Formats: sequence, C-alpha cells, structure tokens
Amino acid sequence: MRKEKDSMGEIEVPNECYWGAQTQRSLQYFAIGKDVMPREMIRAIGILKKAATKVNCDLNKLAFDKAKLIIKASDEVILGKLDDHFPLKIWQTGSGTQTNMNANEVISNRAIELAGGILGSKEPIHPNDHVNMSQSSNDTFPTAMHIAAVEEIEHNLLPMVTKLREALTLKMVEFNPIVKIGRTHLMDAVPLTLGQEFSGYVSQLDKDIDRIKKTLPDLYELAIGGTAVGTGLNTHPEFAERVADEIAKLTDLPFISAHNKFAALAAHDAMIMTSSALKTLACSLMKIANDIRWLGSGPRCGLAELTLPENEPGSSIMPGKVNPTQCEAMTMVCAQVMGNDMAISVGGSQGNFELNVFKPMIIFNLLNSIRLLADSCSSFTDHLVLGIKVNHDQINYFVNNSLMLVTALNPHIGYDQAAQVAKKAYKENTSLQQACVALGFLSAEEFSAIVRPEDMTNA
Amino acid sequence: MRKEKDSMGEIEVPNECYWGAQTQRSLQYFAIGKDVMPREMIRAIGILKKAATKVNCDLNKLAFDKAKLIIKASDEVILGKLDDHFPLKIWQTGSGTQTNMNANEVISNRAIELAGGILGSKEPIHPNDHVNMSQSSNDTFPTAMHIAAVEEIEHNLLPMVTKLREALTLKMVEFNPIVKIGRTHLMDAVPLTLGQEFSGYVSQLDKDIDRIKKTLPDLYELAIGGTAVGTGLNTHPEFAERVADEIAKLTDLPFISAHNKFAALAAHDAMIMTSSALKTLACSLMKIANDIRWLGSGPRCGLAELTLPENEPGSSIMPGKVNPTQCEAMTMVCAQVMGNDMAISVGGSQGNFELNVFKPMIIFNLLNSIRLLADSCSSFTDHLVLGIKVNHDQINYFVNNSLMLVTALNPHIGYDQAAQVAKKAYKENTSLQQACVALGFLSAEEFSAIVRPEDMTNA
Amino acid sequence: MRKEKDSMGEIEVPNECYWGAQTQRSLQYFAIGKDVMPREMIRAIGILKKAATKVNCDLNKLAFDKAKLIIKASDEVILGKLDDHFPLKIWQTGSGTQTNMNANEVISNRAIELAGGILGSKEPIHPNDHVNMSQSSNDTFPTAMHIAAVEEIEHNLLPMVTKLREALTLKMVEFNPIVKIGRTHLMDAVPLTLGQEFSGYVSQLDKDIDRIKKTLPDLYELAIGGTAVGTGLNTHPEFAERVADEIAKLTDLPFISAHNKFAALAAHDAMIMTSSALKTLACSLMKIANDIRWLGSGPRCGLAELTLPENEPGSSIMPGKVNPTQCEAMTMVCAQVMGNDMAISVGGSQGNFELNVFKPMIIFNLLNSIRLLADSCSSFTDHLVLGIKVNHDQINYFVNNSLMLVTALNPHIGYDQAAQVAKKAYKENTSLQQACVALGFLSAEEFSAIVRPEDMTNA
Amino acid sequence: MRKEKDSMGEIEVPNECYWGAQTQRSLQYFAIGKDVMPREMIRAIGILKKAATKVNCDLNKLAFDKAKLIIKASDEVILGKLDDHFPLKIWQTGSGTQTNMNANEVISNRAIELAGGILGSKEPIHPNDHVNMSQSSNDTFPTAMHIAAVEEIEHNLLPMVTKLREALTLKMVEFNPIVKIGRTHLMDAVPLTLGQEFSGYVSQLDKDIDRIKKTLPDLYELAIGGTAVGTGLNTHPEFAERVADEIAKLTDLPFISAHNKFAALAAHDAMIMTSSALKTLACSLMKIANDIRWLGSGPRCGLAELTLPENEPGSSIMPGKVNPTQCEAMTMVCAQVMGNDMAISVGGSQGNFELNVFKPMIIFNLLNSIRLLADSCSSFTDHLVLGIKVNHDQINYFVNNSLMLVTALNPHIGYDQAAQVAKKAYKENTSLQQACVALGFLSAEEFSAIVRPEDMTNA
Repeated sequence: MRKEKDSMGEIEVPNECYWGAQTQRSLQYFAIGKDVMPREMIRAIGILKKAATKVNCDLNKLAFDKAKLIIKASDEVILGKLDDHFPLKIWQTGSGTQTNMNANEVISNRAIELAGGILGSKEPIHPNDHVNMSQSSNDTFPTAMHIAAVEEIEHNLLPMVTKLREALTLKMVEFNPIVKIGRTHLMDAVPLTLGQEFSGYVSQLDKDIDRIKKTLPDLYELAIGGTAVGTGLNTHPEFAERVADEIAKLTDLPFISAHNKFAALAAHDAMIMTSSALKTLACSLMKIANDIRWLGSGPRCGLAELTLPENEPGSSIMPGKVNPTQCEAMTMVCAQVMGNDMAISVGGSQGNFELNVFKPMIIFNLLNSIRLLADSCSSFTDHLVLGIKVNHDQINYFVNNSLMLVTALNPHIGYDQAAQVAKKAYKENTSLQQACVALGFLSAEEFSAIVRPEDMTNA
Repeated sequence: MRKEKDSMGEIEVPNECYWGAQTQRSLQYFAIGKDVMPREMIRAIGILKKAATKVNCDLNKLAFDKAKLIIKASDEVILGKLDDHFPLKIWQTGSGTQTNMNANEVISNRAIELAGGILGSKEPIHPNDHVNMSQSSNDTFPTAMHIAAVEEIEHNLLPMVTKLREALTLKMVEFNPIVKIGRTHLMDAVPLTLGQEFSGYVSQLDKDIDRIKKTLPDLYELAIGGTAVGTGLNTHPEFAERVADEIAKLTDLPFISAHNKFAALAAHDAMIMTSSALKTLACSLMKIANDIRWLGSGPRCGLAELTLPENEPGSSIMPGKVNPTQCEAMTMVCAQVMGNDMAISVGGSQGNFELNVFKPMIIFNLLNSIRLLADSCSSFTDHLVLGIKVNHDQINYFVNNSLMLVTALNPHIGYDQAAQVAKKAYKENTSLQQACVALGFLSAEEFSAIVRPEDMTNA
Repeated sequence: MRKEKDSMGEIEVPNECYWGAQTQRSLQYFAIGKDVMPREMIRAIGILKKAATKVNCDLNKLAFDKAKLIIKASDEVILGKLDDHFPLKIWQTGSGTQTNMNANEVISNRAIELAGGILGSKEPIHPNDHVNMSQSSNDTFPTAMHIAAVEEIEHNLLPMVTKLREALTLKMVEFNPIVKIGRTHLMDAVPLTLGQEFSGYVSQLDKDIDRIKKTLPDLYELAIGGTAVGTGLNTHPEFAERVADEIAKLTDLPFISAHNKFAALAAHDAMIMTSSALKTLACSLMKIANDIRWLGSGPRCGLAELTLPENEPGSSIMPGKVNPTQCEAMTMVCAQVMGNDMAISVGGSQGNFELNVFKPMIIFNLLNSIRLLADSCSSFTDHLVLGIKVNHDQINYFVNNSLMLVTALNPHIGYDQAAQVAKKAYKENTSLQQACVALGFLSAEEFSAIVRPEDMTNA
Repeated sequence: MRKEKDSMGEIEVPNECYWGAQTQRSLQYFAIGKDVMPREMIRAIGILKKAATKVNCDLNKLAFDKAKLIIKASDEVILGKLDDHFPLKIWQTGSGTQTNMNANEVISNRAIELAGGILGSKEPIHPNDHVNMSQSSNDTFPTAMHIAAVEEIEHNLLPMVTKLREALTLKMVEFNPIVKIGRTHLMDAVPLTLGQEFSGYVSQLDKDIDRIKKTLPDLYELAIGGTAVGTGLNTHPEFAERVADEIAKLTDLPFISAHNKFAALAAHDAMIMTSSALKTLACSLMKIANDIRWLGSGPRCGLAELTLPENEPGSSIMPGKVNPTQCEAMTMVCAQVMGNDMAISVGGSQGNFELNVFKPMIIFNLLNSIRLLADSCSSFTDHLVLGIKVNHDQINYFVNNSLMLVTALNPHIGYDQAAQVAKKAYKENTSLQQACVALGFLSAEEFSAIVRPEDMTNA
C-alpha cells in the first residue's frame, strides 16, 4: 500500500493501482450495486483528456514535455490498457466527478511512472493542475457521455440495425412472389405477398435508422469549455472550440462546441431524445420479432407459414420443436430498452439550476440500450432472419381457403350475391368455389378465372 | 354577474353560479386541457365537509344552525346536484387548494341561499371560517382522494373484476373436459384441458383482487386533522379521529385517522401502491385478452380453437369475420393503465418537505384507471367471455396431430425409439401412429391404447 | 326512434341522431370510460372524407351530385357542426373502425337529409359504397390520426412553445446584467448571470422545438390508399397520391402518400417518436418549472431570488405567500405526458401482421399530450414568466457572501493560500475579505479589486 | 477441448469447463450484451436441484448413490464454487431453458468427476434424466426466480431498509425538540419540529417495508411440479409439495407449492407486484433524499438547515462545499428502479398461452432493483443519515423571521388585525413584532408571550 493525498488528507491505496485518493474514497463510500463505469465511457474520457491536453499545450498553458506524458498515458486509457484501474461504480456522485478524478489520478500516476517519478507524488504531473487543466467534472463528464454515445451509435448500433435491415430486404425480395393471407385484428383478411409483409419491416427500420441519425446533431455538441457552471471560468477563450475540433479529429466524428453550455451541464435532453429513438426502434423490433415468431408457430398447431432455423434443441424429445429463441432474446431486449428509457427520462427531468446530477445513470442506461440493440440485431440477423424458410404448402392452403377471397367476386356478381357465397361456404364449411357453383352464380371455371389471390395483392 | 371577494379583492362571477372569487380566479388562470375534477372527488369532498361540520358542531366550535345549513348543502354536493358548480380543471395548483375552495364557496353560497341570505355575502355561512373550519386544503384534498379511491375500488372495480372472475370460472368448469394442445414459446407442447388453461386466468384474477385489497388499509388512513403541515395546528385534539369516524359512518367503510399526518400530506405512496396493483391487474388482463383473441383467431387461417361472439359486423363483405373488439378495448385499457401508473409514480416521487403538489394529477389518473378497468372488465364479461364457444373439431384436430404426444411413448419404448417415431412423422408429414407402426415398434392398437392425450393432462 | 340497418340486421336509433346502426351497436357494446373521440380527430376524418370524395369524383368513380352532397356534409363535420353526432368512446375496436363508420353514417344521413331523402335509407348516399368509397377503416383511421396530430402540433403546440420561448428570451435579456450565485449539486458554486441561467432554458426549448419539427415528416405520410392490408385493393392506382395531395391543399400542410402502406397500417412508430419528442419537451419543462419555483421560494425561508406573480390568494392569512401554482400545473402536465408516452409506446409495440389495433388509445394520448403542453406553455407564459421580478437584495447578498468567490484569488495568491482564506472564513463565519486581510495575504482594497463576481461570469 | 453431445449433435467444449453442449450452443448463439445470469439465480437453481434430487430419491425414482452425487455437486453450486461455469447471458431464450440446462450439465459433469467418470459421458449422471428428473425448464426457472427474489428480499433488502429506518428514527428522536419552519409549495408555512419532519420519513419506510412483505406470500408459491405446461406431466403426485417443503427446509423460508401451476408458468404477476412495491419504496426514497439534500443546501446560499457529512472533497478549492453525493447515488438508484419496474411490467404482460418467455429479463431487473435499493439504503445510512448535524442558528433564524407566525395572533387580535401585521412586516421588511407594536395592537412583551413557534407544533 502507498499513501495518496487529497484535500481531505491521506488515504492508503494498493501499490499496484494507479488511482489515487479520491478514487479510493469513492470505493469506500459507494459500495452500491455491481455496475461499473462502462469501457466506452473510460475510452471517451481518455479521448477528452488527450484533446484537452493538446489544446492546453497549443495555447501555451501546459509545457510540451508534460503534455507529451499526459497524452501518452491518455492513449493507454483510450486503448483499454488501463481499464483495471477504473473500478468505480455508476452509483456514485451524480456529476460523475469521481470518475473524472479517477481518470485524472490514473493518467497522472501513469504519466509519473512513464517519467520515472514516484506514484502519488503528483510530480511532474498533477491530477488537477495538469490532467484536469481548464476542466471541471461538470463539463468533462457530459462531454465524455456524448463522445461515448456517438461512437457506439455510429460504429456499433447503426451498422447492426443496417445489417438487419439488409437481411430483411434480401428476404423481402426472395419472398416477393409468395402470395399469402393477410391478417387484421388477428383475423383472416385479404391477401398480400410475403415480400410485401417484409417490406413493412424494412420500412420500419429505415425510418428508425433515420430517427436515430436525426438525434445525433445534438449529441455532437460538447459541453467542454463550460467548466463549473457553464460560464467557462478559468478557460482560454478558444479552449472550447479547439478541444471540440481536436475531439472531432481524434474520433473522425463531427463534434462541435455546444451552443449553450448552461443547458449542456444542467440538462440531458439530447440523451433523452436519443434514448427515445432507441425506444422507438425497440417498439419496431418488438413488432417484427412477434410477427416472425407467430408466423413460425407450430409446427402443426400454429400458423406455420415460416420455418425458423433450428439452432438449439427445443426439446430432447421432439424434433421439429424449434423455439423462436432469437425472437425471445430480442423482445426481452425491447422491454429492457423501454425500461431504460423511462429511467433516463426520470433522471433527465430532474436537473436543478446549473447541474443535472443523474449523469452516470443516464449514460449507463443509454449505453446499455445501444449495446443490447446492436448485439440483438446482429444475433437476430445471423441466427434467425437469414435462415428463415417458407412453408409453401401451409401458405397456399391458407390463402386458397380463406373466405376473404370472395371480395374478388364483387365486381362480377355484386356484393349481395358475393356475401351469399361467403355465408354459405362458412356455414357449410366448404370452399367458396363449391358454394358459388352450388348457388348457380358461376361455373367452376368462371370462378377460378376470377378468384386469383395474386391479383389481389397489386394495388 | 355578481361581485365575489377574497383576500385579493373583488371579481365578477356569473349570477347563476354558486362558486366564489377563488374558483373564478382559477378558471381564469388555469385554462389548461379539458379534464375537470371528477365527480367521485366532488362527492368525496362533500362527504368530508359534512363530516367535519358535524364534528365541529359536536365539539361546540360551530353553532348548530350553521352546521345544519352546511350539512344540507353538503348533502346536495354528495348527491351530485351541484356538479355544474365544480368547473375547475385538474391542471391547477398541485395541492388541490382551488378545488377545496370551490367546495367551500359552493357550499357556503348554497347554504346562504337555503338560509335566505345573499350570495357572496358570506353571511351566515363563511366559506373559510365555517365550511373549512379546522381544515386546510393540505389535509382535506388528500382525504378526499382516499375517500374517492376507496369508494370506487370497493363499489365499482372489485365487483367488476369479480364479475369477470366468475364468468371465467363458469367457462373453466364448462371447458374442463376439453383436451387441447398446449403451447409454449408459441410452439406445440404437451396437452392440457381448456378448463386448465382458463383456471390460470381465474387464478391470476384471484390474486389480483387480493393484491388490490391488500393496498386498501393504507387508503383507509385519512389525512384530515393534519391541517397545513401535519401538526394539526388550530384543530381540537379529538378532531382528526372524530372526523375519520364520521366519514367511516357516512360511507360504511373502515376509514381511520392517518398514523402519521406529515407523510399523509407530503407523500402519496399509498396511491402509488394502489396504482401498481391496478397495473398488475392490467398485466394479467393483457395476457388473458391476448390469449383469447389468439385462440379465436381465424376463422380459417388462425388457431380457431374458440369462437368469439359476433357483436358487430367485422366487415360488410365477409360473414365469419368477427373481430375480437372486446379484447382490443381491453388491451388498450391495459396500456393506458400502465401509462397512468407511470404518471402517478413520477408525481408521487416529487414531494418536497411538508407537501406533495401533484395531488390532482395523481387522483385523476388513479380514478381513470379504476373506471377503465371496472368498465372494461364488465364489458369483456358481458360481450365476450360469456359468449365464448368452443370449436371442438379444430381443438381435436390439433391435439391429435401434435407430434408432442410422442412423449407418452417414453415409458413404453424408451426415449430413443420415441424420438425416432417423432422424427419420422415430422419428416414424412404423417401421423405418429403411422410412423410408429412403420418402424415396427408398436401395433396400431397398442399405439392407440398408449397415446391418450386426456391421460396426459392429469398430473 | 327509427330503424337503421347493417349486415347484422336492424337496430333502433334516436330520430334526432344522424348516426346509424354500427354507431348504435358500438354505444351498446363499449360503455367503457368517459373519453370520447376528440374533436381534432372528427375534424380530421371530415377532411379525409372530403378529399377522398373529391378524388373519387375526379376519377369518375363517384357521380358529381353525390360527391357534392358528401362534400357538403363533410364540411359540416370539419367545422364542428355535427360534433354531437360523434358519441363513440376511445375504448372501442382498436382499428377505430367504429369511428370511421360513425363518420360514414353521419355524413351519409346528413347528405341524405340535404338531398331531401329519408334518414337510414342509404339513398342516395350509402355510408359504405359512397362515403367510404375506396377506403377501409384500416387506412382512413391512421390517416386521420396523422392529420389531427400535425394540425394540432403546427397550429397549437409549436406556437405555444414558441410563445414561452420568446417570453423566456425577453427575461434572459432583461436579466443579463444580474450577477448571481451559481448552484451545482444544490450547493453554492461560482457565479453566473441570471440571464445566462435563463439562456439555458431558451436553449432547451429551441432544441425541443427542433426535435418536434424533425418528427413531422413521418407524420406527413398518410396511409390512405392502403385500404384493408396495405395493398390498396379496390383503389384506383392514382387514388393514394391524389387524396394526399388534396388533403395537403385542404390543410395547407405538406402531407404526402406514405412510402410503405404496410408499415403505415401495422405500426405507429411515427406517433411513438412524436410522443417521445413531447416527452423530451416535458422533461425540459419540468427542469425549468422546478428551477423557477425554487428560485422563487420563500419569501423569507427560501432562496427568494425571484418574486413570482401573485395570481391567487396563497393563504387567507399571510400576505406574501404566493404559491408557484403555474409551476405546479406545469409539472403535473409533464408527469402526465411522461405517462402518456409510456401508454403510446406499449400500444405502439403491439401491432400484429397487417394491423396495429391500439389506434384510438394512441391518438387519444398523443392529442392529450399536445393539448396539455400547448395550454400549459401558454398559461405558464402569461401568468408566470412575464411577471417574474428579481429580488436584487437577496441575489446580491448571496453572491457577495459565497465562499466560492475565493476562486478568483488563485492567480494572485495561489491555491493553497486561497484555500486557507476560504477555510478560515467558513470556520469563523466571516467574509472572505475579512479572512484574507486577517491572514495578511492582501489588503482590503486589493481584495476588492480582485474579487469581482461579475468578472467571473465571462468565459 | 472435449466433445459434448446433445440431440443436435456434437460440439466442442473447453476441457476446463463443466458445462456441456447446450451451454456451449447458447454462448455461440447469444452474444448479446454483458449481463450474465446473476449469482443469486445460480444459487437458487442449486437449491432447487438439491431439493428435487432428494425428493426423487425419497420417492424411489432415483438411486441413492446417484442422488448423493447430484446433491454434492448441487451444494457446490449453492456455495458459489462453480460460478465460473455459468457463463450464460440474460438475453437468451425467454424461458431460461439454457440456464436450466447449464445447471444440469455442470452438476452432471461435476458429479461425474466426483464419481471418477469421464466428463461429457453422461455416466453415471445424465443431465436430463437424472439432474433434471421430473422437471422442465418451464417450472424450474420460475421456481428459482422466486427463491432468489425471496432470499434477497428477506436477507438483504428488508434488513437494509430497516437499518435506514432505524437511523432515521434515531435522528427523529434527536431532532424532536428542534422547532423549524414548515414549507408547503416550497413556500414558508407554519412551523413543525425537525423530529416531526423526520417522523414522516420513518412512517413512509414503515409502510414500504409492510408493502414489500405483503407481496411475499405470492413469491413463496413455487411452480415446481408443473413441468412443461402446468399439468405436472411425468411427475409423481407428491413431487410438487415435497420439493416445495424441501426448499422451505433448505432455505428456512416458508415456500409452498403454487396453487395454480398454469398461472405460475404463464404469468409473473407476483414479480410485477413485488417490483411495484420496490418502485413505491423508490418513490419514498426519492422524496427523502431530495428533502435532505435541499435542507443541507448551501452552505451560504441555500436552506442550510442541516449539515451533511463531508465524505469526499467537493472541490479542491472550497472548504465547506460538501456535495450531497449519497443523495445523488440514492436518487439515481430510484430512477433506475422505476425504469426496471417498467421493463418488468412490459415483459410480464406478454405471456402467451402456457408460458411467459420474458423470464430472464424479469428476474434480472428484479434482482437489480433489490440489490441497488439494499446497497443504497445501507450506504445512505452509514455515510449520510447517521452523520447529519443541525445548523441551529439557521433554523432559528428562519422560524423566528417567518411571517407565518402571525397565525398565532389570530385568537388574540383577530384575523383582520393579524393580517395587517403581516402585511406591514412584509412590505417594510421588518419583524412581525416590530410591525405589531408599531400598529399599537400589542406590546413587545405581549407579542413575545403569544408568538411561540414551539407551541404551534403540537396539534
């Protein structure tokens, strides 16, 4: 153990850890739950510290050799090499101050080590004076929240939703010629093609992707430069813009300086809106996954229009019992994303004056939602959608036996007689053709020439 | 128009209205939405005013003739005769003060009228000094909230849920002998009886009724006697208990004085918990309504095990297209109740110090949930459950063709051979019996003697 | 009473009502709750019926004289003249079919009346064949949902949020020179100006307005032309586009035909997303209203930096007790909007195959949220924001006594000595100046020259 | 690597892992998120497997030596020795089948190892035939859900909420004599004691504890014995009751066999209700934590009635800036619990027929809520409540300067004159006494004798 010190005095820290006094205190005071600050946030803070240090150096506020050391240590944070030194929980101070200090302490001590100094000495790199220069937890933490969210959305979520969208498009095309019964209110309705049905899913995801993208501009706005309350006290006039530019360069993403720093610290409406777009995606996916599992229900006592890939034994005894497990994982994820959105909304509504103190909870839930949706879209594509097969016999049986085909007779024999046909067929449990012929309205040949489900699917 | 006056001065009020200055101001300052204070709350305030007046009289704080007048006017409020004089919105002050004053003003003016006095003169009955004697909005409004909620739950919701429970029980008994296929993960599983399936619904409702009842004791506790902050300033030491007793007598419900008046004004946890029990009921009803509409799906391209009552034309063209509209109304109600619960929870969590100021919103949503659930349970019973018919052919077809029946062979020919039977039947699309005989494991007679779905439904 | 008839037979309808058999049946089967289809939806259906009729006439599917009658009756629906003839509940069939039929029946009978015909005769205007020509409930109802939502957002909500935004901007400018203490974690922090604080609110609303606008393009897309399942069965190839164009003309809003009709019937993701933007606005407003009521808390035992308009007596006994009632109405509305969003999300996630059957519930909640937010923004502006006054003495007292001003000494005497000053002042409950002078670090004059709160508010 | 086999064939498994083919497949097919099945559930499954094995042995269905091996391996599962062998995610099949099979495989292989057999040989202990004997995933997983939830509530949550309740009670007693200003609508109101204020918190927690306890009886009911669909197919008639008894013995908790097994598999209303009680607790805690941080706000520009323990540096520069970080962690937890409740409710409402397939998501969220509430109550007690100090000067200043004390003059000089006093004091910013004397209503001595805040706190 070594001694580390902050303004409250000394405290012992394990020798093998780079963190310092404030991290150690947080460990002691916040033994709540199991959820630690996610990797994506640690990386984002690393990026921010690197960018801020470069700008402080450029603005001649920080010596070049110090800056070099901090940047080197920050690079290790970015790459995940120091993840073990970020042990703090989500359930800490609501500003994320302790995680910002954790980063300051780890980067400082690692930089000291790189310089051959003594851990905890704060020489030559001081966690506050140098690593946190021109910064406050109040602007660094929300900046990292935005960086982490955007990186994960751009590099993980959108590609995975797009992957699912592409797989559904493939199926849409493949299923285009397949005429099937439509269902409204769960009841038999007029026909459409299976491709048309899948086109609805593709359309939903297209819109969802667009919705998520539309929320990104607000996330591109970074709080950095606002310091403690949004006024930017103790920062160089160019600091905010320059750091945002630097972060944009480091991430190759169009980050800019937030138009209003007061709102950027005190509210997280941008996070609420992005979470809401994820929730909307979850509602779409709930519908798609439900449809597919219903269409695959059976094999003998369900709708059984689709055959889903058999990934695992559904039962040790019954071949053919494939459980739609990918749909189940997906719909569980959707319910979770809806819950996460509520937690974010409640926390997001509770800012006071110059600060919202639900920050770690908000970003924790947002990153969870992003990760779960990305992973489940990918899994759903690979292990379900691409392997969907069509049960043509069942589909044909349904569409050909549906009483709703009677609609096609209207222009030929009129509504009233068509209704008579349908009523008779339903009552006597016969085909429409049989009923129609028995009633003497049309011959069997005439009937067949008119009642062609495929013709009913083109508007 | 006549002049009415309060501590802010004079204001004009329509002559035909009993309300006074404070009601008029609220109308002017709160033109928000369309939702007015519900009848159930007006009635509850009437009950409270009557009880408080009687106790004030008994305690010799209020003259008998004045008390008589107030009680007479309060009785009219209770009976709904003065409903037109309660025009205020939900979206007013969060303490409900304006509705309490609305009641004080209306009762005062109506009492004045009964006494032959001049409206607005506050003689012989003053809205504050006499009608509101020993009371504050802060204790009267939450008291009325509890009275209204309990009356509606006891006299409306519980009877209607019980009515649905009884109807489902009738069906459970009627359906007891009907063996059908079970479904897990939406996939064919081992059989059970339709009665067993319905017994699950009955069991869910039994528990829900019990859950709701368990929340009532907290609602029986009344805030009255706490006055402005919970200390009971300006009340007689016996006031709180006596008024609660009186309300219990008037309503024939076991109301008591709240154990802690500070919590009774500053928090509405009891309302949150009751709303949660309603939400749990909504989740049960969502499952039941979904099951029933799926079992009734078809008529030819769905599960079609049940035939639901045909209440309205599902389509002008297709007889037999019965839409499960009662299920749809029910599930919409369930979604609404889940949303209402969230609104109540958010508002309920936001009390500060001696008062929670989300009171009108909380009771509005709770009464909505109660009313919607009561009405939809009743409608669902009358127009759906009691008319459910069984489609025996379809049920028998499914259960007899399900591959899961193979499970019954295990004790006779072993797991491996049973699996061979099922695989062969599935692959070749034959019956289990055909497959079993073809494989030479059993004769057709032996198979028939063993594979008896009805025997698989008894534990 | 007169007899009206539909495919299920005859039913009696009050003579004075224009509605027909299907409306009457719905009244009988759906006695659930009190919420009826809102006026905004009735108007929207009127617009749709008028547009569809014009197009049917233009496409030579409907005779000109019939079209003229339908359009005349539809105009009356649009103008609200027939509102009394739309008695149906929200809690009906989930497709809104009964409300569509209600409109068909009312327009048909009113048109018959205009033509001098007999109510219920369906001559010369048939509710299905003519008023509903080329339409299905499944595409008309969601079309009306979009029309109603867009009209209310464009003509009511956005103007009212903008009104509040403008009022806050006025105050921002007025409050620009006022230096005040900042608060983070509710604790004293470095100063900012009151104008800067209000700029955060303006910025939040600017973004919220933008968020809501970004959701409109999806709402501009209309389902009309999809008919029963999205294929557009029984419609003219140009029907969908032409009707959308016509609606755009009638409303002067940029409506277009939905890109994918299958999704337009089966999902309401666009509604979920708009509701989410309203929820985000609600979260902003919760923060703004909370801040303002806290800043106005007191008059003697709170923060008391602002004085809020005194609209109603807060108490009959204590002048100066102004309750922040507009904030309370606003925050209750915010909680409600959060709950409404949950109801919409749950319902929106539950579509099956070709139809989502939570439509009336979804639009009911969305219109409620729009109305409540619009009305409360307007009320909050008129009765609160515009009347906010500043309590300069209190603001100055706080900012001048805050220990956080010590931050300004850092560049002059260094962190360590500055900390000594602050600690001494805190411990001995003196001013920073007294402590600084006593410690011999600076003279009183030097201190005054350095510690200037106003200089700390410029980045 | 070794080969493991299930009905879908062989698959390679790392040699050092006890798990088998089905676990391995799940790892491959469900790479979704980071959340693995929590320890509490693994323990609960171990308890269940032990109990079922004992009963199978007692009923002579399983040989004693086999039972002994399974029980030994199950004991290791219970104790957490095999936790590394339970790698599966929450986001898997919605029945939890894969986790049940994970347990069957690990126990089987560990038992085989104990018997000196070959891993993967299924000899002498077969994962399905022996470890899962008389069981199905559909009844084992919900049984484990109940065991885990009850153990955590009884052994962790209730003790921790009680600990907080006791600490608040201590403070209530300590603060009993301290008269302070009351606040309603955030505005100055009549006085109460600080002890009375804290009594409200104690009362809220008392009720919450009671609410949670009232939900336990439903959780005591175990699904075990229902097997695949609730009928108990393939179980001994005494199996269900005996296993429940055995689990009760093993856990020393009053578990019983579920009254209706169909509902026990197909719905999780009991979980929804318990989650709702946790949400209600969260709403209480939100109020308590908010009150305390507001009362501790300052030190100079807030309410500052309480001084909260200084656990960490609030700032490197300003002594006395203590951030209410424990309140922040607590309120973040409360928002999360509200979100978790929504996820549980959505999932809980979505059962179909004989099974609800949102099981892992439901128990994951419930255990999270339990853990977060337990840990944060404990942390809040130790690091905040027990260290709260009173700022007597500030409290006295407020209560003595509040204009609301004028209420005490009413019985002596009447309402009108009292109002004059208050108005004059407010307008001229003087004390009530000064105003009263200046108006000539009372002498300073008379005033002091009458206006005694402490007398106003007793009802």
